[in-house]
Amino acid sequence: MPDFSDVSAGLQMPLAEAMQTQRAVRRLRPDPVDDETVLEVLRLATKAPTGGNMQGWEFMVIRDPGVKHQLARLNRQAWSIYRRFARRAARGNISQARILSAVQWQADHFEDAPVIIVCCLHGRVWPSTMGKASFFGSIFPAVQNLLLAARAIGLGAALTTLPLWSRTLVRRTLGLPHTLTACAVIPMGWPMGGGYGPTTRRPIEEILHLDHYGTRPYASE
Amino acid sequence: MPDFSDVSAGLQMPLAEAMQTQRAVRRLRPDPVDDETVLEVLRLATKAPTGGNMQGWEFMVIRDPGVKHQLARLNRQAWSIYRRFARRAARGNISQARILSAVQWQADHFEDAPVIIVCCLHGRVWPSTMGKASFFGSIFPAVQNLLLAARAIGLGAALTTLPLWSRTLVRRTLGLPHTLTACAVIPMGWPMGGGYGPTTRRPIEEILHLDHYGTRPYASE
Repeated sequence: MPDFSDVSAGLQMPLAEAMQTQRAVRRLRPDPVDDETVLEVLRLATKAPTGGNMQGWEFMVIRDPGVKHQLARLNRQAWSIYRRFARRAARGNISQARILSAVQWQADHFEDAPVIIVCCLHGRVWPSTMGKASFFGSIFPAVQNLLLAARAIGLGAALTTLPLWSRTLVRRTLGLPHTLTACAVIPMGWPMGGGYGPTTRRPIEEILHLDHYGTRPYASE
Repeated sequence: MPDFSDVSAGLQMPLAEAMQTQRAVRRLRPDPVDDETVLEVLRLATKAPTGGNMQGWEFMVIRDPGVKHQLARLNRQAWSIYRRFARRAARGNISQARILSAVQWQADHFEDAPVIIVCCLHGRVWPSTMGKASFFGSIFPAVQNLLLAARAIGLGAALTTLPLWSRTLVRRTLGLPHTLTACAVIPMGWPMGGGYGPTTRRPIEEILHLDHYGTRPYASE
């Protein structure tokens, strides 16, 4: 287990390397993650931009076994429905099947993560696309900072929204005020096995359009 | 203006430094930004996680003066409404007043940015909080990667959603299919003046809660 001096050193990882080797790490050891490490990761999360620089976030640090158990239950409830669709969609696709098996492992061991972060945002979600985008666009950049910082220090982490399927039950579980929306759940812990490493993506040229949708001057065809 | 070798070197910036000095840079020079630089920034954007690893994104690279002008118009329309509220809220707050003046500058010069990126996502936005969070949580991590990569190479960039106030007009302007949602607009260019630098945030201890909302063991009171 790294101690805090390793944490500071880890955060010096070159930006491109951190991004190129970020993965969802779901298989976590139950060994403790100290407060100083969690605070450092969250401090970098709050460096992310927010609409009008409002910084309307609150972060829940879940360590209590009872609260973790409640979140694990909520997660399993959503996963028991969702996995049927996911399994059908993943048929014959090895990389998708691998993700599903990790998500299943996560569902089975959700409460064993040493710490679970729930990222919340104050304010109202307006129904327009602009309203929704400006709301969630004021929390997911922070979530990504959190995930990149975790990656840089080798702390396993993965973003999920499954435990949030019931706004009411989440609010009751965490004691949230009505004006606060839980937007992201991130179990964190030291990786069990492989952990982080290079990822593959579709060539960027295929998903770039110049000026009008469908104009792909960068694609080699 | 940096050339491409500077770009690769810039992306080696330590992760913590990139995050700690990320700002919304809105005052941009009209000087060109080459395709290679834009592609490299977008390549890192697509390294971000997506729900179920779906990678359902498309990126519009806007260079055409006519299309930029349309986006600038949409931006000014939303800003003309929004600024009244923003000005009232910012009264007596120097840092908010400084942001408003930069947003006003951006509105006045929107079409002069050498390149504007519009980040789009396929799929349906389900009405539940979980549905919305998992949708926008599959594009804003990529947006944040894009902004951090721009910061690392010193390329000015800032996230806005104002031009997206009319889904119909955005779709027409960019020729987007009905199944695609434009989620974020990022004018990019080399900074006019100060550019990036350290930011301040509320102490993390004030916005951390342990297990239940309101339990703040980290806050010094």
